[in-house]
Amino acid sequence: MEVYLDNSATTRCGERAKEIMGRALTADYGNPSSLHNMGKAAEDYIRDARKKIAKTLKVEEKELVFTSGGTESNNMALIGTALANQRRGRHIVTTAVEHASVWAAADYLAELGFAITYLPVDADGLISLDELRDAVRDDTILVSVMMVNNEIGAREPIEEAARVIHEKNPDVLFHVDAIQAYGKYRIYPKKAGIDLLSVSGHKIHGPKGVGFLYIRDRVKVKPLLYGGGHQKGMRSGTENVPGVAALGEACAEAYEDFEDKIARLYAVKRRFVEGVTRIEGVTVNGKTGADSAPQIVSISIEGVRAEVMLHSLEEHGIYVSAGSACSSNKPAPSRTLLAIGLPKHLAESTIRVSFSVHTTEEEADYAVEKFAEIIPFRRKFTRK
Amino acid sequence: MEVYLDNSATTRCGERAKEIMGRALTADYGNPSSLHNMGKAAEDYIRDARKKIAKTLKVEEKELVFTSGGTESNNMALIGTALANQRRGRHIVTTAVEHASVWAAADYLAELGFAITYLPVDADGLISLDELRDAVRDDTILVSVMMVNNEIGAREPIEEAARVIHEKNPDVLFHVDAIQAYGKYRIYPKKAGIDLLSVSGHKIHGPKGVGFLYIRDRVKVKPLLYGGGHQKGMRSGTENVPGVAALGEACAEAYEDFEDKIARLYAVKRRFVEGVTRIEGVTVNGKTGADSAPQIVSISIEGVRAEVMLHSLEEHGIYVSAGSACSSNKPAPSRTLLAIGLPKHLAESTIRVSFSVHTTEEEADYAVEKFAEIIPFRRKFTRK
Repeated sequence: MEVYLDNSATTRCGERAKEIMGRALTADYGNPSSLHNMGKAAEDYIRDARKKIAKTLKVEEKELVFTSGGTESNNMALIGTALANQRRGRHIVTTAVEHASVWAAADYLAELGFAITYLPVDADGLISLDELRDAVRDDTILVSVMMVNNEIGAREPIEEAARVIHEKNPDVLFHVDAIQAYGKYRIYPKKAGIDLLSVSGHKIHGPKGVGFLYIRDRVKVKPLLYGGGHQKGMRSGTENVPGVAALGEACAEAYEDFEDKIARLYAVKRRFVEGVTRIEGVTVNGKTGADSAPQIVSISIEGVRAEVMLHSLEEHGIYVSAGSACSSNKPAPSRTLLAIGLPKHLAESTIRVSFSVHTTEEEADYAVEKFAEIIPFRRKFTRK
Repeated sequence: MEVYLDNSATTRCGERAKEIMGRALTADYGNPSSLHNMGKAAEDYIRDARKKIAKTLKVEEKELVFTSGGTESNNMALIGTALANQRRGRHIVTTAVEHASVWAAADYLAELGFAITYLPVDADGLISLDELRDAVRDDTILVSVMMVNNEIGAREPIEEAARVIHEKNPDVLFHVDAIQAYGKYRIYPKKAGIDLLSVSGHKIHGPKGVGFLYIRDRVKVKPLLYGGGHQKGMRSGTENVPGVAALGEACAEAYEDFEDKIARLYAVKRRFVEGVTRIEGVTVNGKTGADSAPQIVSISIEGVRAEVMLHSLEEHGIYVSAGSACSSNKPAPSRTLLAIGLPKHLAESTIRVSFSVHTTEEEADYAVEKFAEIIPFRRKFTRK
């Protein structure tokens, strides 16, 4: 049995997304900037994708910028916004548990002289609204908070955060990294007070190499890439038509039968959490109910190192992550796990299990069974 | 009959590239950063692509950075190199006929205080080596010259330029935008004295949304994107595995039966140029023999505006560009055409025809026939 439980690292591309991608590769392969019909047909793919995505967010089509993925979206949200708005101030607030593509972009801005405040989180990985209120200053131009933490599935109080920020300083721009949240929650940036929102294709059964950044109308963002002035000058470079078309399809599909799919995801998660916590020495980090993301479970296993567990599971066809896969093979202990107060030895014994809407209860049961088999054996082995 | 003669705007994705892309989308869909087999399999696609591409250039695999396409490659070559080497100087030399993704990046650097020298070109679009020698100064850190001009197919004297630059100042880094040249010429950066080389996937029958930048070992380039430290920190973001795999395949395929394919391309071009220049009031810009690129023909048509010609050809199933398609629908007269000395009215009456290795002599003949039919008719019509 093969059970892929690493869906927060990446997902299998959906058939509909793959199909439209194939058409844009070899049938309607024109350049959207070309003035003839082949160009027009390619442009239509982009426009259709824009429409589909705008509909899921209830935003305007022109408020979407297509990027090469989540990292570019987050970099553009941080660096582009900071550089375009630095006359108003040079202070940025973010959290201690952001994805590397946010904190590394913040580090770069710090190099340029921006002041960065990192909000701490509690044991569940959640920021405090009071600390957020205190952190926002007169010279704050941007707050960036992820909606769902990629390692432990903490669901940050984005809507309340938007209110707190704008009450304190209405000029502050609010960026939400929704890379693990989009497709799992209904997100309406305008209603929620979100000015910028990052999404990645390959986390939602779209292809790798494409994503988007929602930028609220009239928010100033400096482009990261310069050239032919594509996408109204916000992102030069021939549009990745096959990728964008597939992204549009994946976004639309993610919100079809939405409530049912998410309810099933929570049922799988509940079943898995109940099973795995019965094993001695196993703790699940953070919240695990409807107050957490439906697809992510972070499991600390006393006495078994993450890599050992990962490879033992792999022998049974089960694929999981040691911490987060996004750090490109770096074995450093996770910043997020340390931020929620895990001691180093437990952070290094933490596995991330992440489901997709295709994960079944049988697969969850099989995984629990193998966890229960492997853990006592590996613990004995390790302690020798 | 449908005849696609806009291959310098974009090409049809090859079947081999599409096939490997499909496999990476739905079979081997792991994240290369994941430590399990699915991650390993994805990483193998990247490694294989790296190998295939390195072989075509006779460079080391580690000298290749995958990007989201030509624009990112050129931006990284200009901005990344300038920022990483600015302590040595803040002067850059480029030409008056570069692609927008080079000159707009140079404009951005000018904003940051860098001095930019733009080399003029002659009526054939070629730079002068003497002017290049004069332009290189003690504080010059980078020279960027395209190998094949995207609008008129001029083949710049890259190898001689490298020699001239390094004789004058051995510390200067030499970037070549090879986006229209790679796959049409054998290019060996190490032998040719090229430090950085940009390539785009979709110009060589690979997919849109992917490209690479060759960076010679030990050349310092500041990354444009920050995050998980992928590609040795040079380009963060989950690798676009399907895109990179397809790019590798397209690169390998481009250099199979290479001499034969290029000879056929030149034969098609020669036949087309001979035919089209027989039409009254038609001139072909720049050189047209083996001293020019095999795939591009720039045609100025006295008395017929480019858009009119383009749409008339389209009615016969022939797709061409008005100037360059890379300027994202902007109807401004081409900088390149003005730089070679065309008067504005002729620049606005210039069509680019660009072949691929799949273009046949029959297609070229059909195009000539339609040019000959349309031009007298449209000219009469326009003059009324």
